[in-house]
Amino acid sequence: MKHINTEGLNEKEKYAIGVDLGGSKIAVALVSPDGNIRQYSKAPTHIEKGKDDTIARMKVHIRQVIEQSGVKMNQISGIGVGAPGPLSPQEGVIYSAPNLPGWKDVPLAQILEEEFHLPVILENDGNVAAWGEKMFGIARGINDMVCLTLGTGIGGGLILGGKIYHGKNFFAGEIGHMVVNKDGPRCNCGGYGCLESYSSATGIRNRIAARIEKTRETIPDFTSISNLDQIGLAEIFEQARQGDPLFSEIVSDAIEYLGIGITSLVNLLNPEMVVLVGGITNEGDKLLRPVKDIVSHRAMKSNLMDLKIVIGQLGSDAGVTGSAALLWK
Amino acid sequence: MKHINTEGLNEKEKYAIGVDLGGSKIAVALVSPDGNIRQYSKAPTHIEKGKDDTIARMKVHIRQVIEQSGVKMNQISGIGVGAPGPLSPQEGVIYSAPNLPGWKDVPLAQILEEEFHLPVILENDGNVAAWGEKMFGIARGINDMVCLTLGTGIGGGLILGGKIYHGKNFFAGEIGHMVVNKDGPRCNCGGYGCLESYSSATGIRNRIAARIEKTRETIPDFTSISNLDQIGLAEIFEQARQGDPLFSEIVSDAIEYLGIGITSLVNLLNPEMVVLVGGITNEGDKLLRPVKDIVSHRAMKSNLMDLKIVIGQLGSDAGVTGSAALLWK
Repeated sequence: MKHINTEGLNEKEKYAIGVDLGGSKIAVALVSPDGNIRQYSKAPTHIEKGKDDTIARMKVHIRQVIEQSGVKMNQISGIGVGAPGPLSPQEGVIYSAPNLPGWKDVPLAQILEEEFHLPVILENDGNVAAWGEKMFGIARGINDMVCLTLGTGIGGGLILGGKIYHGKNFFAGEIGHMVVNKDGPRCNCGGYGCLESYSSATGIRNRIAARIEKTRETIPDFTSISNLDQIGLAEIFEQARQGDPLFSEIVSDAIEYLGIGITSLVNLLNPEMVVLVGGITNEGDKLLRPVKDIVSHRAMKSNLMDLKIVIGQLGSDAGVTGSAALLWK
Repeated sequence: MKHINTEGLNEKEKYAIGVDLGGSKIAVALVSPDGNIRQYSKAPTHIEKGKDDTIARMKVHIRQVIEQSGVKMNQISGIGVGAPGPLSPQEGVIYSAPNLPGWKDVPLAQILEEEFHLPVILENDGNVAAWGEKMFGIARGINDMVCLTLGTGIGGGLILGGKIYHGKNFFAGEIGHMVVNKDGPRCNCGGYGCLESYSSATGIRNRIAARIEKTRETIPDFTSISNLDQIGLAEIFEQARQGDPLFSEIVSDAIEYLGIGITSLVNLLNPEMVVLVGGITNEGDKLLRPVKDIVSHRAMKSNLMDLKIVIGQLGSDAGVTGSAALLWK
């Protein structure tokens, strides 16, 4: 449920459109500068229909949100779009996206600018999550912050000196591909032993599947690998806590590698805050407490001094509100 | 041998004093804005005589350098001091320094400002090394750069968006304390499995010593651990190349962990350049080639695109020229 603020619109206020482009859905919202969603709409991405179809649907929903909101075009600062990358915020181009097949060198910012005659800012979805938490979430007022998006993969964003840090070619923030085990498994990125291989939902599932495949261990209630798809991550964590030996080991590794990845970030960047967002953070304190323990145990005392490790506040709204907030950088 | 430029001084030019405060020596230089050393002096730190004695000697050498250079005080922009940390560039205070016993909360910038009536900038020696390479060395014109100082320990500095990145409390850049092995040995920093434990000179020696201790292996020509102190790092690398099994393994680990540490930095920060400086870089291409191979093999294609991994150019001058360059930020 979106938090749509139904109070009267302020005719002098400037709003921004936030678009969250994902592999399964496109969400669009009109957001006020305080982060309130004034109008919201979403649609399936339908990746199988191709990119032109997806972009057409995106345009329809943006227009719908504007019209239904009653806000005039001159009250809208622009459109922020959060999308999977690699992409260039500078050029407004999505180079490619593993979960958007057929999207190659798509000048999405230009396409939307021509349609709506508004400034469009395109940004990597990990950076959008970080920026949203800084602008409207738990990291308000924080200038040095690392945000980890813990979902099917692990991404994130770096807010350094109050700004999104992009690196040379806008590819900074690949937190999931810090190497945490020299001898670890091959990762989708082409590397080996990446954090994502251990601590993402996919990593956890893959490691369980590989272990079953290898040892043909019997897990209570699950006799074949095919059943694994039907177990939610929450259930995997719960069974781990209840002592299932295989699940316990894999979940314990996931948390420990996450802790050492954060330790490296803390020693390297001396952030004031580390924000965790994404599906796995539904575990709440059951995830946060052991991660904090590991980091406290391992990171340098100097760098732990003012450090907060927290779970983000924006939840499923982060994509649209963070994207809209790109207009207020 | 210092590269003292003996051409006539330009009376309109502004110079800066660079001070490199180390555990064994204090080096002082008058540096011109192009990075040339116009006057140079050095003295032992004599840590055993206490901090007041060291500071007094530092003042004498700064004054000597100024007087001998013939440069007028109004031609000097200020004094930059590179020192071991943790310290605060903002407050100009050295909080403590493992290799400067008795130095606790020393307001060094204020002490020197009162003595010379010049602005004084204090900076962590890892950041000074990075800044020197950016201003006068191999990283000129590079805005996103990571510098690793590979010596007895591993430190470094992050140049992000053209500036030294300090983090919340000025403790960013602890590259040597990225965790590269979850199950690795205890590190001086209090953590475990840090890069420094594997790839610093001390790390390499400690691992060899521990292995000899544990297995009492016989190494050609070296029958006891005490002899290990007499083997230079260059000789350890050379014997490793010639096939000594113990040295080969430890050196190979050192290079591989260095490669995965750099891989994590490249994926996380997307720098344009990674600069290696310090004693181990005397190995030149014999170090650089395998490190580059590992990073090419492991890092994300996108982040490898414009990446250069190089050895620094400033050598032993880096401390004084980099410190002087702090005045030209």
